[in-house]
Amino acid sequence: MPSADDTRVGRATRRQFLFGGATAGIGVAAGAAGGILAVQALGAEQPAPTAPPHGEQRVPFFGAHQAGIATDAQAHALFLGLDLRADVDRADLGRLMRLLTDDAARLTQGRPALADTEPELAVSPARLTVTFGFGPALVARAGGPAPAWLAPLPAFSIDRLQPAFSDGDLLVQIAADDPLTVAHAARMLLKDARRFTTVRWSQPGFRRAHGTERPGTTMRNLFGQVDGTSNPQPGTADFDRVVWSDEGWLTGGTSAVIRRIRMDLDSWDKLDRDGREASVGRTLDTGAPLTGTSEHDEPDLEAKNRLGFPVIPVFAHLRRSRSDNPHERIFRRAYNYDAAPAGDAVSDSGLLFVSFQADVARQFTPLQRRLDELDLLNQWTTPIGSAVFAIPPGCAEHGFIGDTLLG
Amino acid sequence: MPSADDTRVGRATRRQFLFGGATAGIGVAAGAAGGILAVQALGAEQPAPTAPPHGEQRVPFFGAHQAGIATDAQAHALFLGLDLRADVDRADLGRLMRLLTDDAARLTQGRPALADTEPELAVSPARLTVTFGFGPALVARAGGPAPAWLAPLPAFSIDRLQPAFSDGDLLVQIAADDPLTVAHAARMLLKDARRFTTVRWSQPGFRRAHGTERPGTTMRNLFGQVDGTSNPQPGTADFDRVVWSDEGWLTGGTSAVIRRIRMDLDSWDKLDRDGREASVGRTLDTGAPLTGTSEHDEPDLEAKNRLGFPVIPVFAHLRRSRSDNPHERIFRRAYNYDAAPAGDAVSDSGLLFVSFQADVARQFTPLQRRLDELDLLNQWTTPIGSAVFAIPPGCAEHGFIGDTLLG
Repeated sequence: MPSADDTRVGRATRRQFLFGGATAGIGVAAGAAGGILAVQALGAEQPAPTAPPHGEQRVPFFGAHQAGIATDAQAHALFLGLDLRADVDRADLGRLMRLLTDDAARLTQGRPALADTEPELAVSPARLTVTFGFGPALVARAGGPAPAWLAPLPAFSIDRLQPAFSDGDLLVQIAADDPLTVAHAARMLLKDARRFTTVRWSQPGFRRAHGTERPGTTMRNLFGQVDGTSNPQPGTADFDRVVWSDEGWLTGGTSAVIRRIRMDLDSWDKLDRDGREASVGRTLDTGAPLTGTSEHDEPDLEAKNRLGFPVIPVFAHLRRSRSDNPHERIFRRAYNYDAAPAGDAVSDSGLLFVSFQADVARQFTPLQRRLDELDLLNQWTTPIGSAVFAIPPGCAEHGFIGDTLLG
Repeated sequence: MPSADDTRVGRATRRQFLFGGATAGIGVAAGAAGGILAVQALGAEQPAPTAPPHGEQRVPFFGAHQAGIATDAQAHALFLGLDLRADVDRADLGRLMRLLTDDAARLTQGRPALADTEPELAVSPARLTVTFGFGPALVARAGGPAPAWLAPLPAFSIDRLQPAFSDGDLLVQIAADDPLTVAHAARMLLKDARRFTTVRWSQPGFRRAHGTERPGTTMRNLFGQVDGTSNPQPGTADFDRVVWSDEGWLTGGTSAVIRRIRMDLDSWDKLDRDGREASVGRTLDTGAPLTGTSEHDEPDLEAKNRLGFPVIPVFAHLRRSRSDNPHERIFRRAYNYDAAPAGDAVSDSGLLFVSFQADVARQFTPLQRRLDELDLLNQWTTPIGSAVFAIPPGCAEHGFIGDTLLG
């Protein structure tokens, strides 16, 4: 159903080819090209352009992989860690995942959930994705087999983990470019899940809003650092190798590591700019490695300054998070968090570190161990939550997420 | 500095006329009209259009009124209620407000605060506004005079107020279309305020993201209702009459009432669609009054159904929130909130009710009293926080917010 705006720019055919006839939200150009609204009054807002709303954009739900992993990260995400009720058995798990799959399949396409009590809130999916993950106890109750790495991470010396942000049996990652869409989807999913689960933790996160910056801009965290520069690029063979599992029922799936990393912004403030750049190994303005001039330049780890010291210090995060071992790579999809500060504090902020990788033990753990041993950033960051999930593959239209384990 | 995209569509002149040369963010059309990106992979995202980012849009800071009131509501807002430290005197208040004014004047224009430790996070104001309000204790410490209405609201029978969400000496309302911008501004302002204040409460709220829906769409709350239909329109004489004070140092200012209204979504769920529509007096789909067909139709409060009962029930929110007294009107600028549910709950959600009016006692209180007495919505909503602030006028370029009281 092309919108009126499609015909105005006469590009409906190309758009329909690319995204299917039902998706009218892509051509943000159309309406705005037609005219600019209103006049700006003192103290009043600058008028919004008359563009077709991005809320109509949809990410396909069904497929070989779950959405919300290779999907270009949306502005808002809510991570829910649910615990199974004591009496939930394997058959219940199948019922639960059928229900949640049906909800997610509808909501992500801008249709109300089956028992949706506020269907008006379902009309703007805004690239909504819902991604499910299974914790160790869920896989055990399903009768396994569990991948060897599906367990809490080994203890790291820097960790100060709180149970309120750790572990869990079922992960639901809800992400969209609109916060109301996320809130509505969360409520619909939790309503259907409540017979089977309780909420263990609920962690909202954000990035820049849709359209705040030019597409392709790397996220900045609340330290002001660019975050995620050296990520594998979705759509490449490299990404596929890093992310997708080929292990039994998990084939086409992956693993998720979710860690809540508190940033001590107050002590970070006391560090000068040179100190900050040295701790990361990148400049703060462009995110270029200290040996380069732009963000995606390959760092030169051998380069020395005129005193003979490495330009990228030995304790720099950039250096410590690299490995010569091609297996020790992960795909990061982090979000910022900013909670209400308590007492005299100015912030309770940090990073919801989220990474996807085929094998936690082979790819994530050695990397984290290196950072645990020596990474200057550890002085200003503290992991306070940690969870590992097996992310099942996607499903076909009449299947459900988890059907390779539960079906 | 027009962006590369401006020249592509050759409309720089008109845009510069409307918004000034420095604002490149308005013409969202430009880039997207030039082409659509990439190809969609199964399970991958739909590409974002190559539009100039809306993050560059700025709302003027200086002027007769503070920004953030007549400003078309941004997607994200953070309301901070601060308490003055015991030893803060009138001279300190002047210093505090000069500092905060300077921070706000810079950050809203996309420039780092003077002592900004993360200047890279200041570059996308995304219509950032910072609005300050004074509680009773601040005005007293400044040596007054205080408007008669500057006090906690009278107790309403429906209230279940929690001190953790109520009162406060200094209000800072930070709003922008980007959540990272809000987080950064909050931190900069709190760093400068911490010598003088502590954080009493911190309440984040959201509406639809920038561009999710067509401009001019009335907000929906988490009940799915349209919310704010009968608001006075900024830029009209009606709005000016309702909102701006002409009382002494507050001339050109106004008052803010901020109430945290918990919505019991679980019991709301049990109500059918007819019951929901009767409780509000509007249809859920379009928000039209039950006597009309579109949202902005004037409700017919006299209309009867074939049984002789009023079409808009006597207990309907629409009816109870109206008055024949032209003074009993307010300007609403509410936000949704959605906090982490505890225990077995599926949500901890509601509305940050925010209204601006010249005189709380004359305009707000009688209206709230009517709703307290009889409003069916009371069954599903509970006010759990409440605060009243005097909002000083705007200031000139070398003045500061509050200078009519503190200068």
